Amino acid sequence: MEMWVKEMQIEDAAMTYKVNQTLVRKKTKYQDLAIVDTESLGRMLLLDGIVQTTTKDEYVYHEMIVHIPLFTHPNPKKVLVVGGGDGGAIREILRHKSVEKAVLCEIDQDVITECKKYLPEISCSLDDPRCEIVIGDGIKYVKEHKNEFDVIIVDSTDPLNAAEGLFGGNFYNDVYDSLKEDGIFVAQTESPFYLPDVVKRVFSDVRKIFPITKLFMAGIPTYPGGYWSFTVGSKKYDPQNVDTSKIPEMPMKYYTKDLHKACFVLPQYIKDIIGEK
Amino acid sequence: MEMWVKEMQIEDAAMTYKVNQTLVRKKTKYQDLAIVDTESLGRMLLLDGIVQTTTKDEYVYHEMIVHIPLFTHPNPKKVLVVGGGDGGAIREILRHKSVEKAVLCEIDQDVITECKKYLPEISCSLDDPRCEIVIGDGIKYVKEHKNEFDVIIVDSTDPLNAAEGLFGGNFYNDVYDSLKEDGIFVAQTESPFYLPDVVKRVFSDVRKIFPITKLFMAGIPTYPGGYWSFTVGSKKYDPQNVDTSKIPEMPMKYYTKDLHKACFVLPQYIKDIIGEK
Repeated sequence: MEMWVKEMQIEDAAMTYKVNQTLVRKKTKYQDLAIVDTESLGRMLLLDGIVQTTTKDEYVYHEMIVHIPLFTHPNPKKVLVVGGGDGGAIREILRHKSVEKAVLCEIDQDVITECKKYLPEISCSLDDPRCEIVIGDGIKYVKEHKNEFDVIIVDSTDPLNAAEGLFGGNFYNDVYDSLKEDGIFVAQTESPFYLPDVVKRVFSDVRKIFPITKLFMAGIPTYPGGYWSFTVGSKKYDPQNVDTSKIPEMPMKYYTKDLHKACFVLPQYIKDIIGEK
Repeated sequence: MEMWVKEMQIEDAAMTYKVNQTLVRKKTKYQDLAIVDTESLGRMLLLDGIVQTTTKDEYVYHEMIVHIPLFTHPNPKKVLVVGGGDGGAIREILRHKSVEKAVLCEIDQDVITECKKYLPEISCSLDDPRCEIVIGDGIKYVKEHKNEFDVIIVDSTDPLNAAEGLFGGNFYNDVYDSLKEDGIFVAQTESPFYLPDVVKRVFSDVRKIFPITKLFMAGIPTYPGGYWSFTVGSKKYDPQNVDTSKIPEMPMKYYTKDLHKACFVLPQYIKDIIGEK
């Protein structure tokens, strides 16, 4: 028997992967969670049938969502991750020596529990003493923590169900208030090819709130379209104009100092979406 | 009834698209050709079940494979396309005013015939008087035309069957000889994530022959992994160090002057594949 898992990427297109073994499948309080073992992509986490991460390509997403803001901020001490229950962002954050505390605010305890069990390469730093895990709603959390974080990373699922509020202007206002006076935030913001309206709306909302708003791209093989956007809102530091000579050497699989700037150079159709000249 | 076409991207992963209508399906002398109409991606050309191009995202591939070499060469007059029977590369080449002649050497007449019929937005320049169409083997063609072209574009299918010889060192020797003394060539060279060995071997082969060898990337939503490599071999001009201020303004959907340089800035894992420091 062959078993294949099918991910609906858009209404009339799907990606399908051969599954060696289903490690866990459960209905959590919030979503349909599965971790499966595939031949070519290693272990794969799916939430509501959407691929969140695989052990083969997770480094692209986690390195880029973390190191762009953390190497932009000159001295990030306190970092918040909203979502990100797999722990990949926390793992990368804690590689930064300046970081004293990284809070993970994940709404679904089961994501953390199952990723700790089945994705140890990704979740390996969740037990680090510098990591504080909060099970709860990220929207509520940022509202209740003002002027506290140097960096906030919104590592969410797609803008549906529980995550929908993480793509709205009100949330970005609260993120702004939760950041210190020189804070910076980044969010994963989908494929500009498949969801141009989401990219446009988020960018426009963030730009109304933050003095510096930028979009950068990364090639993530297991995400729809493979070419993924991240939106940065920053109070003081421009991520594209960071002095890369001051960035310490750290072994990476995707991020490089040159790419730190080049990833902000956008194709014309994406410039058009966000209204960049 | 719903009809879906399935593209095996790697051995255990496939992309599948809902098909509104099959416009043509035939076994040609060389391959299984299909052009189908899809809802989200427009019309789609498949050869041996592999997506070659869609009307929705074809501009990424065609702009990048053409404008990087043609804006690097200061005065490209004669250009050869090996493969590329859909005509997209020819369309972009003929936008360059310096070009006096563009030869398309395509092995499969049926590709040209059907693309002219069903993909007019892509094939629209194949009847241009500056375009010469040769039905034949590109390997033989370059062997027989020495010191003739300013730019050669290898717009091939994947390295299988008829296209396998287009990914070998002997072919690149002939391409070198077919170029003028300041000529430049580019080839599509697959996904570094899924086919690192192909990228590595081609880059190594080209580097043995050309004094300047570079790899650049583009985000192509309908290709496996979505993040695609192109390899450039150049006798004189460095595509990464072109004076972009001299590039004329032309309306584009993907290519920009800034991206002309930024697309050569590679993620670490791709640098590792090609042995770049």
